[in-house]
Amino acid sequence: MSKKLIYFDLKGLGESLRYILHYGGIQFEDVRISHSEWPTKKNEVPSPFGKLPVLVDGDRILNQSMAIARYLGRGLDLVPADPWDEAAVDAVILTLNDLMASTSGVFREQDAAKKEALKKELVDETIPFYFTRFQNILKENNGHIGKKLTWADFVFVGVVELIEEFLQVNIQGNYPAVKELVNKIHNLPGVKEHIANRK
Amino acid sequence: MSKKLIYFDLKGLGESLRYILHYGGIQFEDVRISHSEWPTKKNEVPSPFGKLPVLVDGDRILNQSMAIARYLGRGLDLVPADPWDEAAVDAVILTLNDLMASTSGVFREQDAAKKEALKKELVDETIPFYFTRFQNILKENNGHIGKKLTWADFVFVGVVELIEEFLQVNIQGNYPAVKELVNKIHNLPGVKEHIANRK
Repeated sequence: MSKKLIYFDLKGLGESLRYILHYGGIQFEDVRISHSEWPTKKNEVPSPFGKLPVLVDGDRILNQSMAIARYLGRGLDLVPADPWDEAAVDAVILTLNDLMASTSGVFREQDAAKKEALKKELVDETIPFYFTRFQNILKENNGHIGKKLTWADFVFVGVVELIEEFLQVNIQGNYPAVKELVNKIHNLPGVKEHIANRK
Repeated sequence: MSKKLIYFDLKGLGESLRYILHYGGIQFEDVRISHSEWPTKKNEVPSPFGKLPVLVDGDRILNQSMAIARYLGRGLDLVPADPWDEAAVDAVILTLNDLMASTSGVFREQDAAKKEALKKELVDETIPFYFTRFQNILKENNGHIGKKLTWADFVFVGVVELIEEFLQVNIQGNYPAVKELVNKIHNLPGVKEHIANRK
């Protein structure tokens, strides 16, 4: 059945899904909606809670980037077979989601001084707290989130790139194991060609 | 192996895990830490990112309530067998997590008038937007989040109870299908006895 990934015309939460789709050699339509089109297209896009990304597979629609990544991973042998190992990578990505959610306060804050203070706390305290631990997990697993390549590696890389871009922070420079995983994912077959061709 | 669920001495994010453990007839130690003990116990508790709940299973530790619920569900036939159906219930719970995360702004806001405005928006707009859609999902699935009883039903009920308590809003009164699911979970074997015995 024909697949479509619908997202905004940016990397954001959609890029890790594009990585997985290209890595898996899955034919899909990479539908991109510009922010200027969004208000008018919002009601046409088949999204159960009005948010993107969504994966359209024939007449079925799946929302939530983590659910989509896991679903695609299920078909590509990118989910650990052992239930505990499966849950362990889930937990890392859910923790990363919490961190990502905590960055949104910076964008919502209107007061410039408070915004700067929130950003400083994130960059000086929160990000080091989490990424020191994420890096230890990578080191324990030969550079992966789990014991082998999983959907979680793709999502992790996508979120690192998103946080670096949105907050203008250098995570890869401070955490070499994170940088290695980004490079590993970027050089996978399919992903490499996608990155070479993207705008 | 001996299992422990470590959480605060409240329902919060831990209660749905207690429901699943009791429903499954799984022997576990229900370790509860009071908020006053937390600062001193924080460094003793085996939590990879310093947060609760965690599930301890022998010498292994799993964090993140959604990952724990799914893992427990895997062993109790509470995960849909079909990968798309599995992902569809993931997406509902991840959406509910987003909603829950958006409530945290109310608690962080220091200014009383702004706090009240944020709460009003949540109660008058955000909660109805989401719960109208959640209720439609329940109606399409004979009262469940997925096509049968899954871990997601337990988590959904736990989060509804949490939002009702924290925001002092009446969700069950406004969405009868939600109330039905709460009652269904509360009356499951194991859960029923747990609720009758809890403080």
